[in-house]
Amino acid sequence: MSTTEYETLRWSVDEDGIATLTLHRPDALNAFDVTMARELEQVFLTDARDDDVRAVVVTGEGRAFCAGMDLSAEGNVFGLDESLEPTPAQLREHLEEAPFHEGLRDTGGKVTLAIHALPKPVVAAINGPAVGIGATMTLAMDLRLASTKARIGFVFGRLGIVPEACSSWFLPRIVGIQQALEWVYSADILTAEQAHAGRLVRSVHEPEDLLPATYELVRSFVRDRSPVALGLAKQLLYRNGAAGDPLEAHLSDSLAMFYTSIADGKEGVAAFREKRSPRFTGRASQLPEIF
Amino acid sequence: MSTTEYETLRWSVDEDGIATLTLHRPDALNAFDVTMARELEQVFLTDARDDDVRAVVVTGEGRAFCAGMDLSAEGNVFGLDESLEPTPAQLREHLEEAPFHEGLRDTGGKVTLAIHALPKPVVAAINGPAVGIGATMTLAMDLRLASTKARIGFVFGRLGIVPEACSSWFLPRIVGIQQALEWVYSADILTAEQAHAGRLVRSVHEPEDLLPATYELVRSFVRDRSPVALGLAKQLLYRNGAAGDPLEAHLSDSLAMFYTSIADGKEGVAAFREKRSPRFTGRASQLPEIF
Amino acid sequence: MSTTEYETLRWSVDEDGIATLTLHRPDALNAFDVTMARELEQVFLTDARDDDVRAVVVTGEGRAFCAGMDLSAEGNVFGLDESLEPTPAQLREHLEEAPFHEGLRDTGGKVTLAIHALPKPVVAAINGPAVGIGATMTLAMDLRLASTKARIGFVFGRLGIVPEACSSWFLPRIVGIQQALEWVYSADILTAEQAHAGRLVRSVHEPEDLLPATYELVRSFVRDRSPVALGLAKQLLYRNGAAGDPLEAHLSDSLAMFYTSIADGKEGVAAFREKRSPRFTGRASQLPEIF
Repeated sequence: MSTTEYETLRWSVDEDGIATLTLHRPDALNAFDVTMARELEQVFLTDARDDDVRAVVVTGEGRAFCAGMDLSAEGNVFGLDESLEPTPAQLREHLEEAPFHEGLRDTGGKVTLAIHALPKPVVAAINGPAVGIGATMTLAMDLRLASTKARIGFVFGRLGIVPEACSSWFLPRIVGIQQALEWVYSADILTAEQAHAGRLVRSVHEPEDLLPATYELVRSFVRDRSPVALGLAKQLLYRNGAAGDPLEAHLSDSLAMFYTSIADGKEGVAAFREKRSPRFTGRASQLPEIF
Repeated sequence: MSTTEYETLRWSVDEDGIATLTLHRPDALNAFDVTMARELEQVFLTDARDDDVRAVVVTGEGRAFCAGMDLSAEGNVFGLDESLEPTPAQLREHLEEAPFHEGLRDTGGKVTLAIHALPKPVVAAINGPAVGIGATMTLAMDLRLASTKARIGFVFGRLGIVPEACSSWFLPRIVGIQQALEWVYSADILTAEQAHAGRLVRSVHEPEDLLPATYELVRSFVRDRSPVALGLAKQLLYRNGAAGDPLEAHLSDSLAMFYTSIADGKEGVAAFREKRSPRFTGRASQLPEIF
Repeated sequence: MSTTEYETLRWSVDEDGIATLTLHRPDALNAFDVTMARELEQVFLTDARDDDVRAVVVTGEGRAFCAGMDLSAEGNVFGLDESLEPTPAQLREHLEEAPFHEGLRDTGGKVTLAIHALPKPVVAAINGPAVGIGATMTLAMDLRLASTKARIGFVFGRLGIVPEACSSWFLPRIVGIQQALEWVYSADILTAEQAHAGRLVRSVHEPEDLLPATYELVRSFVRDRSPVALGLAKQLLYRNGAAGDPLEAHLSDSLAMFYTSIADGKEGVAAFREKRSPRFTGRASQLPEIF
């Protein structure tokens, strides 16, 4: 169903509009390299934006979800251009340009910003080890389900680097600041149960139950739901959840309510009154700008 | 005790200064209509601001808390003026005017902004179904207690509309972003226990125990407490909890500490030293501006 | 190991670089007075910033952690200069000057801002009663472990004053807004178990196990970890956890990744490939400016 061939990913879409994105370098435990970085950004900016796609499930081929940055690669594994050797002040100048200087941008962040920008549910099915960028990329997904074999590690401190991929924005919002600090300071590998107790993952499943449970949940997100309503709701929750004042929410709420009430909302209310399933016609590719 | 007669509400204040606001359309499961919207905004902007009122408990008459927007009403049930038919750009222009163009403002948001602005504890006693605006209005209240018969649903996605009433500002702050997204995506009806496990409601009680437990809790908020201290604390927690930097808290903290230390704080310290109950004289209607 | 003699504190640093800061007025249950305020600010701005210090553990001498503001002191126990008697407008003007007028600054806030600014793990080992400023000062520490004898109280409402020390910034981020409001409204003394159930403290220990458990945890934060990576991670999590948009995190992430990838990150990756412990040379006193 994809118009693109990927080296490091598999992409398919089922009849309910649920796409499955599989990290696919099983011989390397699906380690993240520059090709995967580029392809992940691309799939979320292109294939996933097709209106036939209602939600995306992300999982890993074989026994791992994603073992992290591929440290066996040649050169600067982080994909950064060392020849620049800028001072911090110059770095900031580079980064503040739009678009950022590509050789200075954190590659994981390019991926998570693309995931975050997709106005559809994105759910991680963490089937095994998810370490470093393998862990942080899941934070930009809306929910995380885990197999009992999942192992999750924010191991950056051991490597002398920082948690990346915008994870410092997402992690405290998911698990609270105290838990976030402990996991990043300790740089330990968490079991699925530890991750669940700390509220990082929504639920833990036997390995063979992980994908069925994920699909069942995601199907409940798309059947008889308005893609416009869900896309706007995702934007509202992330954006207003980080806004300084409820009045900002009132502005965007009002716009979103007005827009939906004269579109899919009319059909939704009619279907409710007539006790039938709604036939929504709105498209996630055509959301109004509410911010 | 109210100076106003309400069609859809009941209002009373007990000897401890605890007001009870009862949603009162029991034949319609206390469904929210334009009259209730107007009256709820009014009661929080007028009666509830009387200094004799120290805290507000909100509950529903009969077997429901509030069944949501009254979809049996004529015309545009959301109270919006469709004749405007603006483009999104025009909508934004309208909304950015102060005050917002009334026909474009989300009615639920007008209510929750009025609740939020009250510098006193507001506690929901959710006695039965609380759906749609019946659920989102409770998010602007400071705490939620639930009966085992409570059913809570953020069902907007089924109706083709978005979660409103500034709920995208409040919900992630109460339950975290992962739980908020799941509930809004699934649009399911939650049991009291599910809502409790997800930290939306503070505690769950047998139906006959709900109001006694609520009053007992709220009484502990007002007996021998300074209304000025509580009112400022409410403002500080919501405002600084959403601020970008602790230095902003230090500014408003310092102002609030200075102001209270030369007023109710003097009496509080004196009472502590003399091992007696304090006699605070500060009034919630006369809070200093600390922001 | 300290270059300074303190009246109200004890300071020592072990061979792993773990400093222990002991609140030391045991005859007064380590109550907080103006001397302790000044010394706490100083120790975090001087001794704790030495590169030989990798992390700080804070505890109390004797049976209390800190019983709160010393209300037995003469004059204005809050350390504020009442002779100013400003109007709120004048107060704001004073406070908006940089630096704030000292006689108007909340003394607890000066302490917590100094704790917050330290780019190293700071962990509270709450050994007994921690009340008022004794409770709020721990909120600016990254994690809180508690003895079964810990008692924690945000008792400000009883005294007619507000929660200070930037606690309105920290508390909702640690325990969520609903729990924060309840504890501040009720002004009750919490047991260690209640504080743990509400996610204020990370774990509860028998009294004799509290310090050993704390040191074991903190040692896992510093052994074979890069001080630069941890210092930047602390800044990223607090700052981006409060930022409005993940794009802001992408900017600071990218800077921090670039800087660390050409420094301790090179050694970290080399050590990983060579299956040996890393020998990081970066210093917390020389973090790049990433914001």
